[in-house]
Amino acid sequence: VSEPSDIPANVTLVDIARIAGVGLGTASRALRNAPGVAPATRDKVHAVAERFAYVVSPQASSLRLGPTGRVAVVVPHLDRWFFGAMLKGLESVLRGAELDVLLYPVSDLEDRRLFFERLPARRKVDAIIVVAFPLNEVERKRLELMGVGIVAAGGQSAAYPYVSIDDQMAGRQAMDHLLNLGHRRIAMLEAIDPDRPPMISGRTIAYHAALHDAGIPVDPHMVQAGDWGGENGATSMSKLLGLRHPPTAVYAHSDEVALGAIRTIRRAGLRIPQDLSVIGIDDHPLAALTDLTTVRQDVFEQGAGAARILLELLQGGTDVDRAVTVPTHLVVRHTTGPPLGSKPLTP
Amino acid sequence: VSEPSDIPANVTLVDIARIAGVGLGTASRALRNAPGVAPATRDKVHAVAERFAYVVSPQASSLRLGPTGRVAVVVPHLDRWFFGAMLKGLESVLRGAELDVLLYPVSDLEDRRLFFERLPARRKVDAIIVVAFPLNEVERKRLELMGVGIVAAGGQSAAYPYVSIDDQMAGRQAMDHLLNLGHRRIAMLEAIDPDRPPMISGRTIAYHAALHDAGIPVDPHMVQAGDWGGENGATSMSKLLGLRHPPTAVYAHSDEVALGAIRTIRRAGLRIPQDLSVIGIDDHPLAALTDLTTVRQDVFEQGAGAARILLELLQGGTDVDRAVTVPTHLVVRHTTGPPLGSKPLTP
Repeated sequence: VSEPSDIPANVTLVDIARIAGVGLGTASRALRNAPGVAPATRDKVHAVAERFAYVVSPQASSLRLGPTGRVAVVVPHLDRWFFGAMLKGLESVLRGAELDVLLYPVSDLEDRRLFFERLPARRKVDAIIVVAFPLNEVERKRLELMGVGIVAAGGQSAAYPYVSIDDQMAGRQAMDHLLNLGHRRIAMLEAIDPDRPPMISGRTIAYHAALHDAGIPVDPHMVQAGDWGGENGATSMSKLLGLRHPPTAVYAHSDEVALGAIRTIRRAGLRIPQDLSVIGIDDHPLAALTDLTTVRQDVFEQGAGAARILLELLQGGTDVDRAVTVPTHLVVRHTTGPPLGSKPLTP
Repeated sequence: VSEPSDIPANVTLVDIARIAGVGLGTASRALRNAPGVAPATRDKVHAVAERFAYVVSPQASSLRLGPTGRVAVVVPHLDRWFFGAMLKGLESVLRGAELDVLLYPVSDLEDRRLFFERLPARRKVDAIIVVAFPLNEVERKRLELMGVGIVAAGGQSAAYPYVSIDDQMAGRQAMDHLLNLGHRRIAMLEAIDPDRPPMISGRTIAYHAALHDAGIPVDPHMVQAGDWGGENGATSMSKLLGLRHPPTAVYAHSDEVALGAIRTIRRAGLRIPQDLSVIGIDDHPLAALTDLTTVRQDVFEQGAGAARILLELLQGGTDVDRAVTVPTHLVVRHTTGPPLGSKPLTP
C-alpha cells in the first residue's frame, strides 16, 4: 500500500476501498469481518483503515449508507443503449455499496409531470441520480424537497455534481476528422429531443465553430434536425441527397442517426466512403459491427463515476468533485475517407 | 360498456380497468375519487365496479397492491437492447398500478451467486419478475423463500407463469424463409450464453427440424457456436467463408450475431444477398436501419404481459394465465434472396 497524497481529512469507506485497491462492498465486508473476503484482502483493508484512523460507524456496519438502502435513478428511456449502459455503470458501483436501484423512468412529458407531482410522497430513497435529463425550475424544486443528495449522470442538470462527456469536444473531434480529410461541404444531422427545453447542444456548437475556424460559411441547407432515432437520420439524408449540391460528408449527432443516413446512401446506390463519408458520436456496440467511424464515449464510466460521487456524498464527503468530464476519442473505421477528386490536407 | 363473458368470480381491479377500457392507475384513482381523472371516465369506472360488485379494499385505496409498493426485476444484462425493451414493457404496466421497479442485475455467475445468497434478507418487495433467466434448483428455492409471487418474462424459469416467444417457431420462420428461397446449404450461427446451464435452445432445434423436414442432411461444419455478441458472428462467419464449400445462406440466432456476419461478408468483398443471404432473429431497432431480414419479436409486449400476470397474482387472481406466447413474424428486408444460379421453390 503506497502513501497517497490526496486523502481528505475525513477518510470515508470510499477512500479506504480505493487505497486498498478493492471494491466498496469488499471493503465494507472486510471491516465487518463478514464472510466472502479472502484473509489477505481482509488484512490489507484493516491495515489501511488503521493507518488512516478510519472507524467503522454503526451505520456503516449495518451495511447501510442511508436509511433505506436505495437510490432512485430517474431515466428518460430504458430501451436505448445509452441509458442501459449508464444504468449498468451506476449499478456496478452502487451494488458494491449494497445500495439497490429504484427505477423511475420518465419517457414523455406526461410521465415527467406525474413523476414530479408525486415525488414528495416518495421519501423512500437515500439519494437520486438523474440521467441525461435537464430539469426545469419546478422539477428542480420538487426534487430538492426530497432532502437527499442528487447527482447528474451523462449530462448536466441544474447545479448538481455531474459526470458527462464534453459534447462540444466530441463534436469537434468528429468535425475536425472530416475537415482533415479535405471535406468542405459537410452536412450536420442534428438530434433534438422533442420533450426537452430548447437548448443548443454542444454538438451543434461544435459544427459551427469547426466550420468557422476552417473559414467555411454555413449553408443552412446542410443542417437537418430531427429526433434521436435512426429513421430521422434516414429521412434527413434523403433531403440532403435531393439538394442541387449535396454534401461530401455527413456529421451525425449519434451513431443511430448515422446508421439511418447510411441506409439511405446505400439504397441510393452511392458508395461509402468514396461518394459520401459519414461519422457519428457514441461508439454504440453496433458501430463496430457496421464499420462506422465515430467518436467514442465511455457511458459505463459516466454511470460509475456519478455513482462514486453519490457514495462520497452519502458518506458525508465535503470535498466532492462536482464536475467530472469523461474523455472522448475518435475511432476511425470504414465510413470516412477523403472526398472524390481531392487530396487530404495535412493535419 | 359491453357484457364480457370472461369475468372471474373474484373481480379484481385489473378486470375493472380492462372492462372500463382504462389503465389500472386510472381505475384505481377513479375508484378513490382521486384527482387527475376526467369525470366521464370516473363515472364509467364506478359503473363497471358497481355492476360487478367490486369493493375497493382499504389496501387498494392506499394505492398499494402489496405492503412495499415495489417489484424486484432480476435481469442478467442492462446494456443490451432486449433487456431494456423488456424493462420498458414491464415498467409501463407496473407504473399504472403505482408499483416501483427495484432493479437486481445479475450479469455474471458471481453476481448471481451473491444475489441469491443474500436474497432472503431482502424482503422488501411484493413480487419478483425474472427476465430471460433459467434458474437452477438452489436459486429457485431461495427465490421462493421470499414468499412472494414470481413471474418469468422473455423465457421460462422453473414452473413460474411466463410470457415469452416460441423460440422454435421463430427459428422455423427464419429457416423456412431461407429454404423457400431455394437455399440448401444453410449455416447456423448459434448463440450460447456461457453462464447458463447447457440447454438446447428452440432456435437450434428449429434448424435441425427444418433441414430434416426438407430432406437435407446436417453438415457439422455449417454450425458455428459462440456467445450472443456481434463479434462472435463476425468470427464464426470467417470460419464459414474459409470452408471448401461455404454456405449460400446464414441463419443467425440474433440480429447482433447476423450483423457481425454481414461485416465479415462485406469485408470479404462478397455481395448480400447475391452471394450470401443472412437472416437474424429479434428485429433489433438497428435491423431496420441496416436493412436486415429478421424474425420480429415484440419484447415490450412480453414485458407488459408478464407485468399484467403479476398484477393479477397480487390482486389474488386464481385464474391466471400461466403460459403466454407472444407471436413472432418474418420481416423480409434486403439481406436475403435466392441463391445464385437457382430459382426459388414455390412456397
